[in-house]
Amino acid sequence: MVELSDAARSAIEDGHPASLTTLNPDGSPQTTVVWVGMDGDQLVVASLDDRSKMRNVRRDSRVSLSMLTGGTTHGLDNYLVVEGTAEVIEGGADIWLQHLAHHYLGPDAVFPPPDQRRPGYRMVITPTKVRGNGPW
Amino acid sequence: MVELSDAARSAIEDGHPASLTTLNPDGSPQTTVVWVGMDGDQLVVASLDDRSKMRNVRRDSRVSLSMLTGGTTHGLDNYLVVEGTAEVIEGGADIWLQHLAHHYLGPDAVFPPPDQRRPGYRMVITPTKVRGNGPW
Repeated sequence: MVELSDAARSAIEDGHPASLTTLNPDGSPQTTVVWVGMDGDQLVVASLDDRSKMRNVRRDSRVSLSMLTGGTTHGLDNYLVVEGTAEVIEGGADIWLQHLAHHYLGPDAVFPPPDQRRPGYRMVITPTKVRGNGPW
Repeated sequence: MVELSDAARSAIEDGHPASLTTLNPDGSPQTTVVWVGMDGDQLVVASLDDRSKMRNVRRDSRVSLSMLTGGTTHGLDNYLVVEGTAEVIEGGADIWLQHLAHHYLGPDAVFPPPDQRRPGYRMVITPTKVRGNGPW
C-alpha cells in the first residue's frame, strides 16, 4: 500500500469521472467509467448489480484507475493514475452511490432513485502506486 | 475488427484526452492518458520515446481505451470505450503529435517543440469492441 498525497486524495474526492480497468478471465483489460470516493486510505467504487468489473476483481484483484483532474502541468492536462489491488464487499452500494452523487451530480441529487435502492456491491481499492501529470 | 459508428469516430477526433490501458509483463493493467486520432478505421496514439505502453503492446497486443466525450445520456456522463489489438510502428510520431496538437491544444499549436522532434513510435489500434454511455 502507498499513502496518497493530500493533492491526490482531494482530486479523487472532487467528482471527476474515473476510468477503471479490471482484468477479464482471458487477461484482457476491461475498462468502464465509474464514480469513485475515498474511505480512509482506500478508494471505493459501488455498483447496484454484480457487473463484470466486480466479477473480474474476485478472480484477479489487480486494477488501475485514472481520471482527468482539471488544469494543466507543463501545458498538458493534469491526470491521476492509481494502481492497486481491489476487493469486492457485498452491500452498501446504495449508500455509497448516494454519497458520491452529491459530488458527481450536485448537492441536492437523489441517486439511485428510491425504487432502485438495493445493497449491491462495493469495490474497495488499496493503492499500490500513484502516477500521472500533476502535483501527486 | 468492428467498424466504428460515425458518432464514435467523431468523438475520437474531437480532442478528448483518452485513458489507454496496456498489459504489463506480469499481466497487470498499465494506464496512462494519451492523445488519440483516427487513421482510416484504426486509432493512432503516438510517443516520441519508447514508453511502457509501447513495450507492453509488443508483448501483448490487447488494449482498452476510454474517454469522456461531453454531455450526458440518462443523466450520466457520456463515455466511449474501445477495446482492440494494437501494433507498434516505428516513426511518424512527431507528425502525428503535431496533427493531434491541433485538436488537443488549438489550431495554432506547435507540438512537439521543434528541437524535440524525432520519429518516435506510433501505436495503431484495431477496434474489436465498442461500449460506453452514449450514441455509439
